[in-house]
Amino acid sequence: MTITITAFEWSPDGGKGLARDTRVRWALEEVGQPYEVRLVSFGAMKEPAHLALHPFGQIPTYEEGDLVLFETGAIVLHIAERNAGLLPDDANARARAITWMFAALNTVEPTILELATAKLLEGDKPWTRERLPLVVDRVRNRLQQLSVRLGDADWLDGAFSAGDLMMVSVLLRLKASGLLGEYPNLADYVARGEARPAYRRAFDAQLAVYTGKPPAG
Amino acid sequence: MTITITAFEWSPDGGKGLARDTRVRWALEEVGQPYEVRLVSFGAMKEPAHLALHPFGQIPTYEEGDLVLFETGAIVLHIAERNAGLLPDDANARARAITWMFAALNTVEPTILELATAKLLEGDKPWTRERLPLVVDRVRNRLQQLSVRLGDADWLDGAFSAGDLMMVSVLLRLKASGLLGEYPNLADYVARGEARPAYRRAFDAQLAVYTGKPPAG
Repeated sequence: MTITITAFEWSPDGGKGLARDTRVRWALEEVGQPYEVRLVSFGAMKEPAHLALHPFGQIPTYEEGDLVLFETGAIVLHIAERNAGLLPDDANARARAITWMFAALNTVEPTILELATAKLLEGDKPWTRERLPLVVDRVRNRLQQLSVRLGDADWLDGAFSAGDLMMVSVLLRLKASGLLGEYPNLADYVARGEARPAYRRAFDAQLAVYTGKPPAG
Repeated sequence: MTITITAFEWSPDGGKGLARDTRVRWALEEVGQPYEVRLVSFGAMKEPAHLALHPFGQIPTYEEGDLVLFETGAIVLHIAERNAGLLPDDANARARAITWMFAALNTVEPTILELATAKLLEGDKPWTRERLPLVVDRVRNRLQQLSVRLGDADWLDGAFSAGDLMMVSVLLRLKASGLLGEYPNLADYVARGEARPAYRRAFDAQLAVYTGKPPAG
């Protein structure tokens, strides 16, 4: 059955891989599932046709026959559960990998989103200069805890899993901030994620939307 | 196998059900699984013994034989997958219910957490009075979208599911703000969740920790 996802017609990041369709593309590339992409404009995302697929008017969405999903976490979990390669076979290890998905999305990403909001939506406000260090410290707190847990392991719990895919994707948002460099093992962890062939294919495919060039290879 | 969860020895909310162990207690009550509770102090949460269970030094954790989980979303999903009552049998409906879990935790809760942070951690800052309306508007934006999608349905997608359990739990954080009252169908939705016998049992059990009285019944 054909899988169709949605992505930005024009991305605020210009194709640096930060739009959330990259996470879904990466998961599909890891498991070797082909997919089609429908681009939507910022205007169309708020129209009834798209809101029927995604009640919060965002991308990506995931369509496969009668099934319509939204929320990157749910889509990646769906892909991971129905294909080999993103979750361990052992039931307990599987539950732990899923735990890291939720940790990425509900414990780590909210502080990073708050930093993005402070810079992008409140960058011109009179309080931002004084407030920003507080927000950055909340991010540092999470990075410090994550860095301690990761230690010198390659991935968060055994082999690479959907949990790592999501955590690396969340941490990638910090690249421009320089914060990752304060935690060398996390910077290396993110680099390991980016070096995966499936990530490269996903990145190239989302970039090609904006450069107009087809993905290499 | 005995299930043991952790909860605050002393909760900042004094037992109003907002500590995240309530979400796990609720899930366990819905599926009829008995559980034990180990209380941890704020100090102990930052000690190595607890950090081994929860790398971010929070509650709840979930222990069942060799399995140790953290993250409320992961714990509730684990309970829902291994017991009847919180996820539909149909595969597509199941994926959609899980989508609402992620939507609650990654799309709705971050704006609500930002509001809590603005009030609790930045309440004494000089910018908070001017900034708060911006933060509140971001919460309203999500509530408006959720209200439109819920419409006059009882639950988000067919029968009550783990998706509703998580969304109601997230929205409960807004009770004191008065914002829910602006969206009568969401206020009714939360009230329906709170009226469930399993929620009442979970609420009573977490409250009893602070009142010292055993749960009624």
